[in-house]
Amino acid sequence: MEFVRTTTDASSPRFVSTEKRIATFDQDGTLWVEKPTVPQLAYCLDRVSAVAEKKPELKNVEPFKTVLSGDRAAVAKLTMSDLKKILVATLTGMTTDQYRADVKQWLVTAKDPRWKKPYNELTYQPMQEVLKYLRANGYRTYIVSGGGQDFIRAYAEQTYGIPPEQIVGSMGRTAYGYDKDGKPILTKLPELVLNDVDAGKPEGIQLMIGRRPYAAFGNSTGDRQMLEYTKAGAGPRLAMLVLHDDAAREYAYGPAQGLPDTREGTFTQSLYDQAKKSGWTVISMKNDWKRIFAFEQ
Amino acid sequence: MEFVRTTTDASSPRFVSTEKRIATFDQDGTLWVEKPTVPQLAYCLDRVSAVAEKKPELKNVEPFKTVLSGDRAAVAKLTMSDLKKILVATLTGMTTDQYRADVKQWLVTAKDPRWKKPYNELTYQPMQEVLKYLRANGYRTYIVSGGGQDFIRAYAEQTYGIPPEQIVGSMGRTAYGYDKDGKPILTKLPELVLNDVDAGKPEGIQLMIGRRPYAAFGNSTGDRQMLEYTKAGAGPRLAMLVLHDDAAREYAYGPAQGLPDTREGTFTQSLYDQAKKSGWTVISMKNDWKRIFAFEQ
Repeated sequence: MEFVRTTTDASSPRFVSTEKRIATFDQDGTLWVEKPTVPQLAYCLDRVSAVAEKKPELKNVEPFKTVLSGDRAAVAKLTMSDLKKILVATLTGMTTDQYRADVKQWLVTAKDPRWKKPYNELTYQPMQEVLKYLRANGYRTYIVSGGGQDFIRAYAEQTYGIPPEQIVGSMGRTAYGYDKDGKPILTKLPELVLNDVDAGKPEGIQLMIGRRPYAAFGNSTGDRQMLEYTKAGAGPRLAMLVLHDDAAREYAYGPAQGLPDTREGTFTQSLYDQAKKSGWTVISMKNDWKRIFAFEQ
Repeated sequence: MEFVRTTTDASSPRFVSTEKRIATFDQDGTLWVEKPTVPQLAYCLDRVSAVAEKKPELKNVEPFKTVLSGDRAAVAKLTMSDLKKILVATLTGMTTDQYRADVKQWLVTAKDPRWKKPYNELTYQPMQEVLKYLRANGYRTYIVSGGGQDFIRAYAEQTYGIPPEQIVGSMGRTAYGYDKDGKPILTKLPELVLNDVDAGKPEGIQLMIGRRPYAAFGNSTGDRQMLEYTKAGAGPRLAMLVLHDDAAREYAYGPAQGLPDTREGTFTQSLYDQAKKSGWTVISMKNDWKRIFAFEQ
């Protein structure tokens, strides 16, 4: 609140003009739950059966065979190379319009395994409040996520009030062409334009925004460079990291403070040390958040 | 005006909600003069001497030797391969901050050879009026140009009132790193993320905006796909092409209506025919524009 007060007070030497008020937010683990797996991966796994209906030859080919078997333990052991094959098969080959419609439809029916709720109800209430508070003070809020840009665009306007043009994510190339009626279409290709994690986050911010943020929020080592880049700007800059230390109400993970390491959302001791040294605020979910989800009493 | 009236009247069945009001504009030849060469190429040619100061070995290597000779006729004959070498040498290797500062500085001193004015005074007054008129009616105006995104960002806010995040251009990759003091920097690499012409325009719109425009403006075959894509959307869509047919007040070029063909801004007969068939409006600079530049009496 002190950051917002000082940057929006026209009489303050630290005033920031409205057009420069940019705040960037990681998504998975920062705005919504990323355990036991990031929702986009759940989508991809759910989509394998639909893809296999259209391409039956995949049914006997790994890793699709394992996914179709429904053996959760085996699915959890899939390698990065397996996952890449699944991403390519489920996220490319369709038009951008088809893809967006399919993600929207999936979100209506898919449920998180722990809370049995649609994934987009598992956003963090305090972060929703931060988004609204910043916007009420003239900040434009962006998502800057390692997740797929088009995936996030399918629900971010409804879920966070963040429009498609303010979603910076991992970007796939599209190919312009025409359908059989001669109507222009954009087809999603299996080629990554930008992998929006680590150094890719400031690179993605440059590509899509062209301005350095004044505030940045993350929860893992994948956000380190975005926070460094944000803090390195002149004048007041805010950097915050969400620490998942509440196993009872959500999850506890990351080696910082002796929590276990995980594939998604690694919060290393080195990141924790850098945060403390650099004036980044570490948010303890356990101690700092009264309520985690809107649906809690 | 009929398009704006119908899309902004809440009682109209063709009403378009504010968040969807996107208008895209090509730059070179649509918003400002692109003859005798696009201003960005003039910048690159001017920058060769500064580059050669730092890398003297280039002084005796083609195509740099020719550029440094000042022989305009020889420079005009450089091949695309030569030009690519010049673009790489002059547009990459520096940080994004250095580059932006350098372009800003260049624009203060460089002059167009015909009017002897800074390039950003050579914008078309009627197009400036269209930009303002659309914005006054809730439209967000974007530039979607084959020119370099970072080049346009250096002046578009001042010149057109269009902020950096609304510039879609040919995009170069950047590399995140640290300067000798450990400060984060983004260095411009000689690698194109997206070539924002032809099919690249709707692809760039998808990448950066994620919404289909309701209005699109261009002047050449490089804008064809952007206009097709725009017009293919449901509801009212506006597509307009500027025809350079006024040799006295500006230039006349493009095979349409028997005008000469040129490298920049080719307006072919086939584009003209498609425009007439598809309900795109062709703007005659000669007949439709009372005044071309703001500085005219």
